[in-house]
Amino acid sequence: MKKFLNRVESVLDESLYGFARAHADIVKFNDLPHFISRATPSRTGKVAVISGGGSGHEPLHIGFVGAGMLDAACPGYVFTSPVPDQMLAAAQAVHTGGGVLFIVKNYAGDVMNFEIAAELLDCPNARVLVNDDVSLPKDHVAGRRGVAGTLVVEKMVGAAAEQGADLATCKALGDKANQATASMGVALSCGTVPALGKPTFELADNEMEMGVGIHGERGRQTLPLASAHDIVAHLVKAIDEALNPKKGQSVLLHVNGFGATPLMELYLVYQLAAQHWQQRGVSVVRSLVGNYTTSLDMAGCSLTLTVLDAELLRLWDAPVHTAALRWGC
Amino acid sequence: MKKFLNRVESVLDESLYGFARAHADIVKFNDLPHFISRATPSRTGKVAVISGGGSGHEPLHIGFVGAGMLDAACPGYVFTSPVPDQMLAAAQAVHTGGGVLFIVKNYAGDVMNFEIAAELLDCPNARVLVNDDVSLPKDHVAGRRGVAGTLVVEKMVGAAAEQGADLATCKALGDKANQATASMGVALSCGTVPALGKPTFELADNEMEMGVGIHGERGRQTLPLASAHDIVAHLVKAIDEALNPKKGQSVLLHVNGFGATPLMELYLVYQLAAQHWQQRGVSVVRSLVGNYTTSLDMAGCSLTLTVLDAELLRLWDAPVHTAALRWGC
Repeated sequence: MKKFLNRVESVLDESLYGFARAHADIVKFNDLPHFISRATPSRTGKVAVISGGGSGHEPLHIGFVGAGMLDAACPGYVFTSPVPDQMLAAAQAVHTGGGVLFIVKNYAGDVMNFEIAAELLDCPNARVLVNDDVSLPKDHVAGRRGVAGTLVVEKMVGAAAEQGADLATCKALGDKANQATASMGVALSCGTVPALGKPTFELADNEMEMGVGIHGERGRQTLPLASAHDIVAHLVKAIDEALNPKKGQSVLLHVNGFGATPLMELYLVYQLAAQHWQQRGVSVVRSLVGNYTTSLDMAGCSLTLTVLDAELLRLWDAPVHTAALRWGC
Repeated sequence: MKKFLNRVESVLDESLYGFARAHADIVKFNDLPHFISRATPSRTGKVAVISGGGSGHEPLHIGFVGAGMLDAACPGYVFTSPVPDQMLAAAQAVHTGGGVLFIVKNYAGDVMNFEIAAELLDCPNARVLVNDDVSLPKDHVAGRRGVAGTLVVEKMVGAAAEQGADLATCKALGDKANQATASMGVALSCGTVPALGKPTFELADNEMEMGVGIHGERGRQTLPLASAHDIVAHLVKAIDEALNPKKGQSVLLHVNGFGATPLMELYLVYQLAAQHWQQRGVSVVRSLVGNYTTSLDMAGCSLTLTVLDAELLRLWDAPVHTAALRWGC
């Protein structure tokens, strides 16, 4: 394993201290229990928007804490759910009377631990469950996973909360954004969890993993490595089947790198995907290309498509000021 | 080689079309010869700031085209200098009467080709040569290389030009920013050039390459893999020897990923480097952490330190609106 680290046990803490120091104008770090919150408290009565999950996906979620997006993020150990104490402490620290909205990726551990925190929390709260990964069938026993579409949900809900929407409205908006979003990923190699010291699965030089998640787990199927054109055709087919964007509709297209794929390749993938939807008469009106929901040093990428109505477009465009996303302010 | 590509010959073009499409609000792509320029022309009389170099370092330079930074960037093939026709065409397209400033990383091919373009150009022009890489001795036969500090020079010169500084002032400011900047990098693995199909050098599982550049070339020395603490100690020592930041001085600390190193590790490295300078009484007042000057899918990172006076700080903070850097507007 070749990584910049001192001790495997302290890699998360050392990294979080660095993150909070580098972005001290935007965030602060609470050490016990771990959470990242805004450096400046939100105004009284705003819905507090909180997310979290295993680490190793940076900048998700800590990089999305700030004005117009999250109030706090709770990082678990690498690929490990945060514990309820973290979400509870974060909620108590950042809520200002408007209630708390948890945005949770659909993984058993995250769901359970956020639920326990919600039960312990003595203020109005609600949950948005993100399950945008269409690589699994809709009736899969554990349900579909939450992957790169989480960014889209967090951005839109964060904007609504900032603009004064109440808890029920933020919850409904989050569900709507999630429903309007589908993602599908492919890996060319697997990342290495520090505590494990080796890739969690192996791919031969001529193989790729289609329909992959973000936790070093196997995907839908292992396939022979193909051209970018054929890979993108596979990804967009799965998204089209699940989301069925219509001719004339406007969409946000997000090409997300998993951590070790150069931007040059991500933009090449973007071009192929954008061409596909353009040819179908779907209008790509907003785009985001880069490493946002990573899986340590996994090579690969995912496509995320969100069908936009005027409300979702307005929320996407609203000002945001976080470590990883910043515009309009 | 596992990459998202169709044909090796077309990877750059396909990627540039995708880049320009994804950021059509900021840039446009000129196909023959290749350059990226601002979507909206700059005001008459502004100094046109132009950079360029081999591709494979994205987002450098194309991701820095936009208000407050570059007017145009000329991408060569992967790790290959752009040709004079590109710089000449870009300069003719974007200059608006205020003259042209070329920002050139110190590599023989880049220097020669920008010089030829300057000779062919029929308007006032000047050049800032960036040579921030302190891994080579100052009297090295080819001189020190331009690496991640190029971003700093481009940001500051771009801000000055936007604010109305004339050509001589921009040139002097660029030289000053370059003089105030030192970088040193380390690789844990080497990237793969598409046309080559394999890493340009090999490292054993217990080796790292210290003082590495950004073109897949060997560095100062191959060393046994060490802890992050020891690696950072090595990097900051080289920077301190070259730049000698004084107690009480303010600095910008930029931790740059080479492409395949997770943000989690970059923030850990940042924390160690920031602690080092804090302990020396040097004040880290600005920070930038992420993959900005990459070397395809090389794992590793570099530290860049810029000693800031009030003028350089003001130029760093000035509004910028590009694909890869955006604040204040």
